[in-house]
Amino acid sequence: MTDFSKTRALFHLPDGLVYLDGNSLGPLPKKAVEKTATMMREEWGDLLIRGWNAAGWMAQPRSIGDRVGRLIGAPEGSVVLGDTLSIKVYQALASALELRPQRKVVLSDNGNFPTDLYMASGLIQSFDKGHELKIVAPEEVEDAIDDTVAALMLTEVDYRTGRLHDMKRLTEKAHAAGALAIWDLAHSAGALPVDLAGADADFAVGCTYKYLNGGPGAPAFIYVAPRLAEQVRPALSGWLGHDAPFAFDLDYRAGRGIDRMRVGTPPVLALAALDAALDAWDGVDMADLRAASIRLSERFIAEVERRCPDLTLGSPRDPEQRGSQVSFLHDNGYAIMQALIAHDVIGDFRAPNAIRFGFTPLYLGEDDVVAGAERLERIMAERLWDRPKFHKRAAVT
Amino acid sequence: MTDFSKTRALFHLPDGLVYLDGNSLGPLPKKAVEKTATMMREEWGDLLIRGWNAAGWMAQPRSIGDRVGRLIGAPEGSVVLGDTLSIKVYQALASALELRPQRKVVLSDNGNFPTDLYMASGLIQSFDKGHELKIVAPEEVEDAIDDTVAALMLTEVDYRTGRLHDMKRLTEKAHAAGALAIWDLAHSAGALPVDLAGADADFAVGCTYKYLNGGPGAPAFIYVAPRLAEQVRPALSGWLGHDAPFAFDLDYRAGRGIDRMRVGTPPVLALAALDAALDAWDGVDMADLRAASIRLSERFIAEVERRCPDLTLGSPRDPEQRGSQVSFLHDNGYAIMQALIAHDVIGDFRAPNAIRFGFTPLYLGEDDVVAGAERLERIMAERLWDRPKFHKRAAVT
Repeated sequence: MTDFSKTRALFHLPDGLVYLDGNSLGPLPKKAVEKTATMMREEWGDLLIRGWNAAGWMAQPRSIGDRVGRLIGAPEGSVVLGDTLSIKVYQALASALELRPQRKVVLSDNGNFPTDLYMASGLIQSFDKGHELKIVAPEEVEDAIDDTVAALMLTEVDYRTGRLHDMKRLTEKAHAAGALAIWDLAHSAGALPVDLAGADADFAVGCTYKYLNGGPGAPAFIYVAPRLAEQVRPALSGWLGHDAPFAFDLDYRAGRGIDRMRVGTPPVLALAALDAALDAWDGVDMADLRAASIRLSERFIAEVERRCPDLTLGSPRDPEQRGSQVSFLHDNGYAIMQALIAHDVIGDFRAPNAIRFGFTPLYLGEDDVVAGAERLERIMAERLWDRPKFHKRAAVT
Repeated sequence: MTDFSKTRALFHLPDGLVYLDGNSLGPLPKKAVEKTATMMREEWGDLLIRGWNAAGWMAQPRSIGDRVGRLIGAPEGSVVLGDTLSIKVYQALASALELRPQRKVVLSDNGNFPTDLYMASGLIQSFDKGHELKIVAPEEVEDAIDDTVAALMLTEVDYRTGRLHDMKRLTEKAHAAGALAIWDLAHSAGALPVDLAGADADFAVGCTYKYLNGGPGAPAFIYVAPRLAEQVRPALSGWLGHDAPFAFDLDYRAGRGIDRMRVGTPPVLALAALDAALDAWDGVDMADLRAASIRLSERFIAEVERRCPDLTLGSPRDPEQRGSQVSFLHDNGYAIMQALIAHDVIGDFRAPNAIRFGFTPLYLGEDDVVAGAERLERIMAERLWDRPKFHKRAAVT
């Protein structure tokens, strides 16, 4: 049985703050500060350029990638870290389209995170081969999979509602139609059990600053099914994906397996912080995590529905159909969330009308969830949100 | 007059080490450790998600980008940080080709850093519009510019030899032929005066972990001439390049000016370290830096040629034709450099036969340069390099 009181002790959370936004940015793992500072002093400072070999920097996108891989059901050597999720989406989609040259449809849904859709449409316009980005409602995806589809590109957990796609079933459906499946795990990795190998996913991408607590702008990851990795031509053919980067050949020759998905120089400082953050997962059973997450979100829904009749649940009611977050809807959602933050309960707002809360058992307990619901009740009951300052839009919402 | 004894005091350099590899990885600025740790504790740790607004994280790719811009003659608001240099090359080239749709040649030289060439050939293959990557010798570039060229894509300072292109003249020539000019400043930014606006460059890219001392894997930068920025369609159309990232529209709409070259979430930890590193440039006159760099490299060449008759200068002899690095050639260059590193003089090796040394007045004086030459003399005179252990290739050379 996973001891979540132990994992909670690993994180810094400000006193009095109820942090229900780990689905957007995970909190600071206490060890990450010292680990990063030590890396800077002892590796960058003392080893200098020798750190690439002596401190293993060059290998970290793979070695730390494997630590992420273990949380998402990816076999050793099938995940690599680097860049941002947007870049990783581009790589996966470019590779998928080239593996299905006769097909012209990229199928996604309107619950996908916008950057995935933006990257896809930029790619389609650049490649200019007559591809079409077809965006349907999440519940229409399954029926829209047919033999025109080159790639099914979905985010497993909807960033707004928390709605969870059935990765295994949709991947099977895609394969049966001859399409490839690309899964964005931004809201899945570290949030619930993921079994990429079991689902036979073709590609997966994700970020490490949400449930994996790697810090703001922490590197993204990409998974390519080992059965495909050697067939993939990297569209972003950077030198660190080359078979022999330090031969400095003029011609590109793709590296072995997942290594070809590397592009440029690894972000070593960010990798140090992420490596420290991943220590929190040692000894965590993902089934325990899932059970605890469901307990927290069910409790939160029950408390909020009882206390705040003006809020409408925007997430699936069945916890098996949700990831690890819950949204409530209200026309004044933006101001409500601002007021809630001013009262030390942090969630976030997603346009047009969703207030969103993430449930992260590594460092949250039922007390937090109840405290969050209580403060939300007060804000709604006393209309504390209805002040001009809470309506003023910030740059980042 | 710039006081380089003051800038030297800002860096951590291990006792007894002669570090002539700042052209590959700059040393640790002492303040960077505390600045990064403070950012992690007080911003990530205490502000959590609020850091995007309250700590200015979201604006840093532009605000810190402007600090880099001041070192390369770029006007305010024309430089943005993020991703790796490879990705930035891809963005610049994709944009340039789309601005010259009737032309099919990308002109570069064999002194360009391989990743630029790799990214270009990957792009050409993906876009599949009949483009050709034409690679000539550096001295043949000027004559090869003609009206078939869509984009001239060069690294200003050759990573192997230090040979310096005439950015202004070649850009003029490119423009006269109707082509666009993309400059890679990896070995220029912080190494010598660069005047992007004065040269009327169209695009420029570079990294910040060499002469700018941002740390291993520090973010890259991209410059787009303000006259072009609004015309450019981003091929890598990520959400942070969107005009309204937090509206979460399904359709992409490019942001204003250089903002559209942003892709994904900014690497905030790395930006904190880079910001600290850039403080070293306050009060540095780039003309003084250049004069000091030439003094150092001239002294090194004179010392090495006098002491090591078996080594052949691989760099232009005229300092005005060089950047801030010098190479010597020897068939056993790899082993010689390994032996030199074992004797606490760090340069690096570039296949097939160059040993390379960077001269960085911010933290190097003539004493260092002479000490380096002395130890090199001993290694050559006593054939200390001729031992099996120095011939064993490491992963990173």
